[in-house]
Amino acid sequence: MRAEIAEQPDVLAGLVQAHDAITEAGQRIAARRPRFALLAARGSSAHAAMYAKYLIETLLELPVGMVSPSTTTLYGARPELHDVVLITVSQSGGSPDLLEVTETARAAGALTVALTNTPGSKLHEAAELAVDMRAGEELAVAATKTYTATLLALYLLVDAWRGGNADQAKDIGALARGALETPTTGSAERYRFADRLVACGRGYSLASAHEAALKLAETSYLATRAYSGADLLHGPVAAVDGQTPVLAVRSTGRGGDALAPVLDRVRESGAEVLTVGSVPQAELRIPECPEQLAPVLEILPVQRVALELALARGGDPDQPRGLQKVTQTR
Amino acid sequence: MRAEIAEQPDVLAGLVQAHDAITEAGQRIAARRPRFALLAARGSSAHAAMYAKYLIETLLELPVGMVSPSTTTLYGARPELHDVVLITVSQSGGSPDLLEVTETARAAGALTVALTNTPGSKLHEAAELAVDMRAGEELAVAATKTYTATLLALYLLVDAWRGGNADQAKDIGALARGALETPTTGSAERYRFADRLVACGRGYSLASAHEAALKLAETSYLATRAYSGADLLHGPVAAVDGQTPVLAVRSTGRGGDALAPVLDRVRESGAEVLTVGSVPQAELRIPECPEQLAPVLEILPVQRVALELALARGGDPDQPRGLQKVTQTR
Repeated sequence: MRAEIAEQPDVLAGLVQAHDAITEAGQRIAARRPRFALLAARGSSAHAAMYAKYLIETLLELPVGMVSPSTTTLYGARPELHDVVLITVSQSGGSPDLLEVTETARAAGALTVALTNTPGSKLHEAAELAVDMRAGEELAVAATKTYTATLLALYLLVDAWRGGNADQAKDIGALARGALETPTTGSAERYRFADRLVACGRGYSLASAHEAALKLAETSYLATRAYSGADLLHGPVAAVDGQTPVLAVRSTGRGGDALAPVLDRVRESGAEVLTVGSVPQAELRIPECPEQLAPVLEILPVQRVALELALARGGDPDQPRGLQKVTQTR
Repeated sequence: MRAEIAEQPDVLAGLVQAHDAITEAGQRIAARRPRFALLAARGSSAHAAMYAKYLIETLLELPVGMVSPSTTTLYGARPELHDVVLITVSQSGGSPDLLEVTETARAAGALTVALTNTPGSKLHEAAELAVDMRAGEELAVAATKTYTATLLALYLLVDAWRGGNADQAKDIGALARGALETPTTGSAERYRFADRLVACGRGYSLASAHEAALKLAETSYLATRAYSGADLLHGPVAAVDGQTPVLAVRSTGRGGDALAPVLDRVRESGAEVLTVGSVPQAELRIPECPEQLAPVLEILPVQRVALELALARGGDPDQPRGLQKVTQTR
């Protein structure tokens, strides 16, 4: 996990340099002029899909839905999808339910796009367009480089779809290197005896909050939960008190601005807040970048904290209990 | 909260009897033949919207998206929505962000439908079609009768939209009375000293798992999280062990069947599982009903457990710390 975390700047820089295949896929989506987008994914990839939902809704102004695979696999729904693009995200390309969702959508007329780290996988072959995130094999069960490579690939895909040329992402490798150098001293010690944690974010950063919560749950067995800043005030804030650390993901931009009043409320309840992001107040401060790329950087210091915390608690972050790298769900 | 829980059979029976207004709204949606549905909601209403997503995807075979309000309110996205129906769910009809989402979607051509418990609210007036869930004023902060009334109203709306006549729901009041009589003895004691809980479900019952997790978090301050049975195996199962109670929502039908192998995995990890639903194995067993109506019943024993647990732990379920009945978020 440590080695794969460290590889990320090179993986990201390499993906931007070799973005021609993604650009072509984005242009082919644009040529079909879809009216709606659907996203299918599970686990960390579902958090990357959440990021893509914000990108597509905000930059392309299209309505987006997250697929509930069970409506296809359990209930046999067969919607008509001729003007829909389905993007299926899976690093392994090996989940049977996502394969079935993709095949069914393609048969129903959707333009299907698979984003995987495994060219030659069944999912890669089932989709009309296939994008390779080029992260190299990932051995640790906890996804790190495949998560950020997925985010960047989705950004590049949407950017090409809207006619962009990857301009804003060209320095992402160097920025990631800077984000990985963020001092995390004390953060793992801080959570050494915590048994729960609430993560929150708004806008693009919501995906980072979800991924941070998952990373800490699967490597360090914390009971974690992520909320949008708005949803946190609708009930869950009751469960936040002086014993509950709050991890706030907050970068410069509209999402980060909107999180400020939520954090005031959370602090009033006695909770301790640790902020990660590009805002000047962040304890885990990452380099500034355009808001829509911030999630690629925000997760990096959190991955390091998750690794250090798992080791401090005597766990094995490469092989958390009860988990396999490829999960077979239907 | 206790009184409002007890009112539910009458509220539900009354809503079915007086379903003409909902039927008319459903028929008007059908007449517009939308290609895509969007749902907007927060808190408990978002769990009801999750249920509606399964109804619409499965029974109407339309793709569905959950609105991320911030793409409208923070980022100013203005998608074109002429063949889209937006259903906004809010018991109070008072959330500024949902109002803005509804107004924006209507201006963009969507058929807008507001489902509230507050005729005359701004949201009710902003939408082209307004549905009243007729639950009567709800005083406790923790939503109970407005949650189940929302579920039933959404069922009736979708049923009318597909040309039904509310047939399958006609006994829902009596069934709810039976579900409320489910013995919960020992359940609150069981969780008296728990500090975390994982809820899970699949298919229609996923909404119940999310609502159960929220109800226990907001009344009893447990660190709770809900997962689809499939997502639970993608990482979070690592955080489940002998110290983590699992609340499984499982009713007869395809969703309940698909949860069985997940629960086998969870039990292997040493976790204690309490099952609520209509399967014969359920400790909190509710009456059988068509699978697509089960969520209306599944939450009822859990509401009673949440109430009893909050009281046992010295809390005030009518007024949990840090919460207000109407949450103003943008």
